[in-house]
Amino acid sequence: MTKNVLILPGDGIGPEITAEAVKVLNKLVETDGLDISMEEDLVGGAAYDVHGVPLADETMAKAHAADAVLLGAVGGYKWESLDISVRPEKGLLRLRKEMELFANLRPAVLFPQLASASTLKPEVVAGLDILIVRELTGGIYFGQPRGIRTLDNGERQGYNTYVYSESEVRRIAHVAFQAAMKRNKKLTSVDKANVLEVTEMWREIIDEIAPEYPEVQVNHMYVDNAAMQLVLNPKQFDVMVTGNMFGDILSDEASMLTGSIGMLASASLDANNKGMYEPSHGSAPDIAGQNKANPLATILSAAMMLRYSLGREDLAVKIEEAISKVLDQGLRTGDIMDAGCTQVTCSEMGDAVVAAL
Amino acid sequence: MTKNVLILPGDGIGPEITAEAVKVLNKLVETDGLDISMEEDLVGGAAYDVHGVPLADETMAKAHAADAVLLGAVGGYKWESLDISVRPEKGLLRLRKEMELFANLRPAVLFPQLASASTLKPEVVAGLDILIVRELTGGIYFGQPRGIRTLDNGERQGYNTYVYSESEVRRIAHVAFQAAMKRNKKLTSVDKANVLEVTEMWREIIDEIAPEYPEVQVNHMYVDNAAMQLVLNPKQFDVMVTGNMFGDILSDEASMLTGSIGMLASASLDANNKGMYEPSHGSAPDIAGQNKANPLATILSAAMMLRYSLGREDLAVKIEEAISKVLDQGLRTGDIMDAGCTQVTCSEMGDAVVAAL
Ligand SMILES: CC(C)[C@H](C(=O)O)[C@@H](O)C(=O)O
Ligand SMILES: CC(C)[C@H](C(=O)O)[C@@H](O)C(=O)O
Repeated sequence: MTKNVLILPGDGIGPEITAEAVKVLNKLVETDGLDISMEEDLVGGAAYDVHGVPLADETMAKAHAADAVLLGAVGGYKWESLDISVRPEKGLLRLRKEMELFANLRPAVLFPQLASASTLKPEVVAGLDILIVRELTGGIYFGQPRGIRTLDNGERQGYNTYVYSESEVRRIAHVAFQAAMKRNKKLTSVDKANVLEVTEMWREIIDEIAPEYPEVQVNHMYVDNAAMQLVLNPKQFDVMVTGNMFGDILSDEASMLTGSIGMLASASLDANNKGMYEPSHGSAPDIAGQNKANPLATILSAAMMLRYSLGREDLAVKIEEAISKVLDQGLRTGDIMDAGCTQVTCSEMGDAVVAAL
Repeated sequence: MTKNVLILPGDGIGPEITAEAVKVLNKLVETDGLDISMEEDLVGGAAYDVHGVPLADETMAKAHAADAVLLGAVGGYKWESLDISVRPEKGLLRLRKEMELFANLRPAVLFPQLASASTLKPEVVAGLDILIVRELTGGIYFGQPRGIRTLDNGERQGYNTYVYSESEVRRIAHVAFQAAMKRNKKLTSVDKANVLEVTEMWREIIDEIAPEYPEVQVNHMYVDNAAMQLVLNPKQFDVMVTGNMFGDILSDEASMLTGSIGMLASASLDANNKGMYEPSHGSAPDIAGQNKANPLATILSAAMMLRYSLGREDLAVKIEEAISKVLDQGLRTGDIMDAGCTQVTCSEMGDAVVAAL
């Protein structure tokens, strides 16, 4: 049966990089019997300019109807000064929340061909392969009450609520334990249980679940220590699991350790493996429209989509191998350019991947 | 007039490292007319074992009466499993809150003699000198309501409140702007204004205050991006200002960039420059009692104490120069040991600093 994929290019470099991923998917439709139909729609600032909201209800409905969503990136200077309730990112948060995409998988992998791109010493990052499992539909991102109020003394006070219920922690914990089972069977749960009650409960629940996965070696780490350990000795980690806010911070830190955030994909999944896929990097408005961006993170996100939501692990592997070949050929976009390599444009990179499939 | 210093060695390596700082202070009393009287008391697990609480009321009273507090470190395996309300760290949080130490200054400095200790490439961190100004008595650390409740459906829910009032943001902002004025006049304010209303207000207040310091170049950065930029290009930063939780994470990350967290001091100040001083590292229970710990962060914390709370900038500089001499002599504790250097114990390092004064 034909699967439906909604393409949301978004803002900045979003349209350029998703176009290359679509190119790759189209090639697989032609040559490998990939049975998908793709439709495009607006999100973020691009949607705001047309609809006055960063995500129109019709688009939300299409996302619900789709089997998977491939998103480029959202946001840009142009919409920075708008009131928070209409900020482009709210479109992203609405998609995550309404699609119940509670499990955000963010790999931080060092590509052997790009080892020198890291700001860390080669011996510290060689072979780095971390999977961060971030809870994506709860925590302080969505907690109520929230807002800015005026106190009796006339001054303003801003407030947000960091909240998790047991069942929210349980379901993300199971995703993380299962991921660890498929990898090196090590799980680090990150919290701030020495200060925050919500994460004290988080820690207790991880400990309750752990006996169900006796092969997985579990440890707990405070978030401040985790931020340090990622710099000191990142290879100690296999899978890390944490809440929405800490996951936002640590996954960005971890991805930057690889030196090539333009290469990192992400998946956001619901309980039935329906998902949204996006590169880990942002919309890079400074280079938008210049055909300079690196499309590989988006193409790798399409590979994750084939793996998790479209039941085509074979084609996911095929894309990943094609990207490895292209890197072996020495082709590089500007962000990962290195001595002795050949610099290519965004679309040339996409073409090269298609050719290598 | 004689100034009173309360020494709180705490747990783990705390007693060893504070003993060396006291040695240095005693030497300055003898030779440089430093007019202080020192008294010791218990904090953390050490206090819990004696009083059943991590900070006795008598100790709190002594801290209030003192001109400055020098603290070693708190916590350890032994007290990990205790209920959060009696965890050793609560002693620390009570000290910070009741003494109104809202301004936490955490330098992340690369000592030229220790350049190779960093896991980052030398060119990325050479000359690194960041000051993180962290709000220390508000935010989610102290926000109410907080706790773990049982919902109607029987499941538990943990919750904490991230809250700042305008005046809390203002006072820490002024500390940060003033620090920037004394340094390279660059201030980066870190928030998550695209998601959290409390930090949206934070950002607005920074912008309101900025015109009072026209020479300071201000920028805003989301916390996830800040965590990345610290890895990618840490030398872009001069002073960073942020709330309690983000400051906890980013200051640890930044300090680890230097590769020698055993060298980093911190000051926590109230509105009148009364303060508490502590090394940035923890209580390291694994090496406690072995005379192996690095006392330099604590000795440097004593230097900060002389500078900010005891009005003896001259002696602060004297200590810092002595430490630089000792490093030039090639003396190193195990944590910063390097080829061609001489490994010394904790107390030998303290003696060497005293000799170099
Ligand atoms: C754009 C922003 C709302 C988003 C987040 O904080 O989740 C982004 O940083 C991310 O990590 O996908
Ligand atoms: C021990 C802990 C409560 C403390 C904090 O989170 O503030 C520590 O991590 C620090 O940074 O001083």
